[in-house]
Order: sequence, then structure tokens, then C-alpha cells
Amino acid sequence: MPELRKDAIIGRWVIISTNRGKRPSDFGATIEEKRGGFCPFCETHEATTPPEIFAYRASGTAPNSPGWTLRVVPNKFPALQIEGDLDKVGDGMFDKMSGIGAHEVFIESPLHDMTIPKMALPDLEKLFWGFRERVLDLKKDRRFKYIMLFKNYGSAAGASLEHPHSQLIALPVVPLVVQQEMQGAKAYYDYKDRCVFCDILHQEKSAGIRVISENDDFFALSPYAPRFPFETWIVPRQHSSVFENATNAHFANLAKALQDTITRLDKVLQDPPYNFIIHNAPLQEEHDVPYYHWHIEIIPKLTKVAGFEWGTGFYINPTPPEDATKFLREVDLS
Amino acid sequence: MPELRKDAIIGRWVIISTNRGKRPSDFGATIEEKRGGFCPFCETHEATTPPEIFAYRASGTAPNSPGWTLRVVPNKFPALQIEGDLDKVGDGMFDKMSGIGAHEVFIESPLHDMTIPKMALPDLEKLFWGFRERVLDLKKDRRFKYIMLFKNYGSAAGASLEHPHSQLIALPVVPLVVQQEMQGAKAYYDYKDRCVFCDILHQEKSAGIRVISENDDFFALSPYAPRFPFETWIVPRQHSSVFENATNAHFANLAKALQDTITRLDKVLQDPPYNFIIHNAPLQEEHDVPYYHWHIEIIPKLTKVAGFEWGTGFYINPTPPEDATKFLREVDLS
Repeated sequence: MPELRKDAIIGRWVIISTNRGKRPSDFGATIEEKRGGFCPFCETHEATTPPEIFAYRASGTAPNSPGWTLRVVPNKFPALQIEGDLDKVGDGMFDKMSGIGAHEVFIESPLHDMTIPKMALPDLEKLFWGFRERVLDLKKDRRFKYIMLFKNYGSAAGASLEHPHSQLIALPVVPLVVQQEMQGAKAYYDYKDRCVFCDILHQEKSAGIRVISENDDFFALSPYAPRFPFETWIVPRQHSSVFENATNAHFANLAKALQDTITRLDKVLQDPPYNFIIHNAPLQEEHDVPYYHWHIEIIPKLTKVAGFEWGTGFYINPTPPEDATKFLREVDLS
Repeated sequence: MPELRKDAIIGRWVIISTNRGKRPSDFGATIEEKRGGFCPFCETHEATTPPEIFAYRASGTAPNSPGWTLRVVPNKFPALQIEGDLDKVGDGMFDKMSGIGAHEVFIESPLHDMTIPKMALPDLEKLFWGFRERVLDLKKDRRFKYIMLFKNYGSAAGASLEHPHSQLIALPVVPLVVQQEMQGAKAYYDYKDRCVFCDILHQEKSAGIRVISENDDFFALSPYAPRFPFETWIVPRQHSSVFENATNAHFANLAKALQDTITRLDKVLQDPPYNFIIHNAPLQEEHDVPYYHWHIEIIPKLTKVAGFEWGTGFYINPTPPEDATKFLREVDLS
């Protein structure tokens, strides 16, 4: 059973996962070696994943058989496990609880070589529909406090399989960065009586030097103080703190915005490894709160200069966001 | 001139450095290519670094000539620059200031292939002497609020040169993780009237399952909630919040503790890339404060699964610290 443990100084919860590789010699094995040529996510290989939780599939096709366009399955090597009680206990001066949670994989396409720039927009929209379905289902479980939705693309960004997929982790605690974001946004709202993200959109629209693209519902922009070169945020025009409250019409424009952004990053940076993370309000926030604004943060993984930043929370970014915006904006999309 | 910019939501300051590589094509160049066979840090190559700030050298030898054992030079590609005013200004709703600071390199040995496990202990002690000298000098400059001391070892951990070296960055702001550590430690002290690190040492001594080694002045331990496999902390027995107040006798035992720990990590993990970071109180804290306890955090860089953790502050660690302790403790050091 994995365990959640709390750092006694900063209050950061971490998962100590005993289901995954753990012996010193295991760290030598690279992702490439693990792949070994066979892809468990490809169409006709449905039996090699745990049984599907959810899928969009041609009518008349049976679960766990071909005919799907999006398939959601439990992670075969989950960081957390769904059954059990939280068992919150002290461990001397420390705090821990059972590693209860959900860890699901969204197989984005039956085709091994599909990428976001190549996807048909209706299929990419359905990825967001699928995220919404699973969040709406999992948030009924009152043990969960936060649901993370993210994609690791490329082995340098942490992907362990090539086949296009993204992930969901439902947690019984709120991650530290999310807590900080909520506190920071709340402090701004208490002081200004306005949402900090709405204010950023307002300012960036008139400044014009960090807006990469826009459509009816979304802005893609380089944040003012990015941690990483070419870090890009996709922010909805309309205020909402809750990702899963978005409509299909919004998701259609979100799919366009994400495809447009990843295509630009691909052209400028030659198919870089990247992570995208949906920043959403914690589940306890019952209603749409006025101070937080959901959005997507995309981080291309361009430099190895990393371990140090982990330890300090301090970032040196060699690319000014105004320069990144310019490169991304000038891409020839034809 | 580099710029310090503040994230409007979380309040994180980042350096937007324009002195370093920044065009999209620059990210392709790896560290190996930059090396090109010539090492600017080797003995007799003194002229290829900026003039030395400080050195331990044989009596009678001139600055910037052979004869040194430790040499401190400005970073040739500094993230921050020493001359100028802070010029704190608003940028619409955002905040920025000039990238004022110091960025120094500690060349730990004249020998290219020296490593911490192979170093003579008196030479390793002098590295700490050197850190202390530079901190004591730089803290006179009232523009600086924090000094980071760290080492990147191996290209996966962010080292851009092989020759053994560590770094100092003096900052006009306090990094976010340091702020959090200070706040967390202060909250614990306010509640318990004891230092959280002293309490951790007390508990770990009796629990015994996360102590890797100890000597008269230092403990090496696996933290209770480590973010990374084999993360190891070296914590002084005696309470002090200020690294640079340590005596030569303490540094002698610190050198022993660090060499012992890195040797163990080397043997268990086969010469892993790693970072060590000295966690020290901010410079504004004039006196030794009762709630904070300086220490060293060592992070071996074993997994690529990283970009996602950057974005969320959420960590999945496949190696329980009790297992890591066992592996490290059982190393045959003979």
C-alpha cells in the first residue's frame, strides 16, 4: 500500500510508492528499455491494459475491444490505490495517511504515432470531454481533495510510453503549489476585489507583447515571470475556477487553442518534450470561486539545469517571455 | 542586464537572464558539445577564467597562477550582475527589479578528475572555509537578502563543466522554497517552542531507521517525506540557523560527513549525478534564530520523471526512505 507522508517543515505531502521500481539497480533502466517494442495502448492490444473505466467508441463495439477513439484505463502501476480508508495517523512527530487515490490513463488515440498537432479537432475535444467525465465522477468520492490532469510528452518530460496519453491523479490532499496558487490568488482578490488572472488578461491584451494567439474563448500567452523558456499558459477569457464546468462549445475552442499552441512550440523548438498541467480549483471549493481562474500551463523541457531548481524553488530563465512570444507568434502555420 | 520578475499569483521571483543562450536553436546544444575538450578550470589555465576573487594557494604564488588548492572566480556567464542599483519598479500590475547579484564559482581542486569521495579531507574542509569567507564578505552588501551555495555534479544534475566546482548566487530576494521553510519552521516553533529540526534529530536518533551515519557534529539521514529517491540531509547536531557561524572544527566534521555520504551514494547508485544545496537562513536574520537550523540537502538525480513535479509541487517517490537508509548504511566503505 503506498503511503502519503507530510514534510514536517514545509508541509508538503509526497507519495511514497512501493508499487514501482525501488531498488538502486532499478534506476539504471531507461524508458526506452522498458518499451521493448510492444505497445500496450495500441488498438487490438486492449487486453494488455487493466479493464477500461470509460471510452468513446463506435456504437455496437464492446468494452476492451477495438473501435474506440478515447480510452480511459487504470494505470497499471498506480502511484495510489482506490480501495481502502485514509487512516490518518501520527508517526511520532510526523503525519501520514494511506496512499488512497485514483491514477488513470487517457489513451488519446488508437494510433501509436498520433500527436496533438496531427489530431482531428473533434478527437482532441473528446479528450477534454473525457477529463470532465472522470472528474465529475471522481469528485463524488468525498475522500478526494484534488484531481490533477496532465500530460507528459517525450521521455525527457517523464513519459514512460510513446503512445499518446495523458493522466489523472485524484488525491486526498491538495498539492503544495496548488495551495500556494489559491492563497496567492485569494490574497490578491481580498486586496483588489478582482481576480488576478482576469487582471492579467486585461493587462496582456493591451500590452500585446506576451499574447501568442487568441480565439473566442481562450488566450495563449507567455507569463510575465516564466520559470522555463517558452512556458506558455492557455487561459479562458471568461472567469471560472472550475475546469469541469466548461461546456462543449468551450472545449471546442480549447482544443483549437491547445493544438495551435503545441503546433507553434513544435515548429519553433522541433518537437520538444513537454508537460501540460491543468490548473484547477481544489474539489472542496463547492462553487465557482471569484478569486481563482482555471488554466493550462505548458512547459517545454528544454534544459537539463533542473535538480538545483527543485531544491530551491528558484529559477533562471534564459529566454525572456517577450522573445518567446515573438518566435511563437511568427510561426508559419500554413 | 538580467531582470528579476515576480509571478503575480504565487509571488515567486525568477531571473530572466539575457546573458545566456536564448534563441530556440540554442537549446539543442548539449553540455558535452560546449565542453569541446578544453577545461578552463584546470591548473595552468587560470587566464581563461575571470580574475580570481579569492583562493587558497601556496605562499609566494601570485593570483591567477598555479599553486592553488581552491579558487573562487566570478561565473563567466553570470545569471546576475554585481554592479548597479536594484531599481525596483512596477510594470503595470507586475513587479520587477534589476538583476543585481553575485554569481561565483568555487573550483574545488586543480585536478580535473577530483571528486568529493577522492578528495583529501583538509581540501574538502577548505571548500567550506571558502564558502564562509565569501558569505561573510558578500553579506556586508545590504542589497543582498539571500546567498545560495550549491553544487551540480554530472550533466543530468545541471553541471555544465566536468571539473569539480560548486557555486554561489547572492540574491536581492529570498527564494520561495526558503521563505516556505522559514515560515514552516517559525510556525512549528510558535506552537511547540522548539526547533523543528532539533525535534527531528531527537526523534530520528531514537527511531534509528532513517539515520545513515553520524559523527561528533553531524547526522546524515533520509528525511521522513523525501521528494526524491535517496534524498539525504546532513544536519548539525548543535542548533544554529547560520551556516557561516560554524567553526573550523565543525567544518572538519562536515567534510567527513559529506565525504562519507557522497561515497555511500556513489557505491549504492554507481556515481549518480546529484545536487547539494546548503539551506541557510536569509541574511536579514541578523542573529542566530531559534526556529531555523541550517543543513545540507543532497538530491541524487535518478529519474527523468521531473517536468510534471515542477508544475505541481507534487512528488512521487518510489523508494521509501527506510529502504534508502538501509542500502546506504550497509555500504562497505573499506
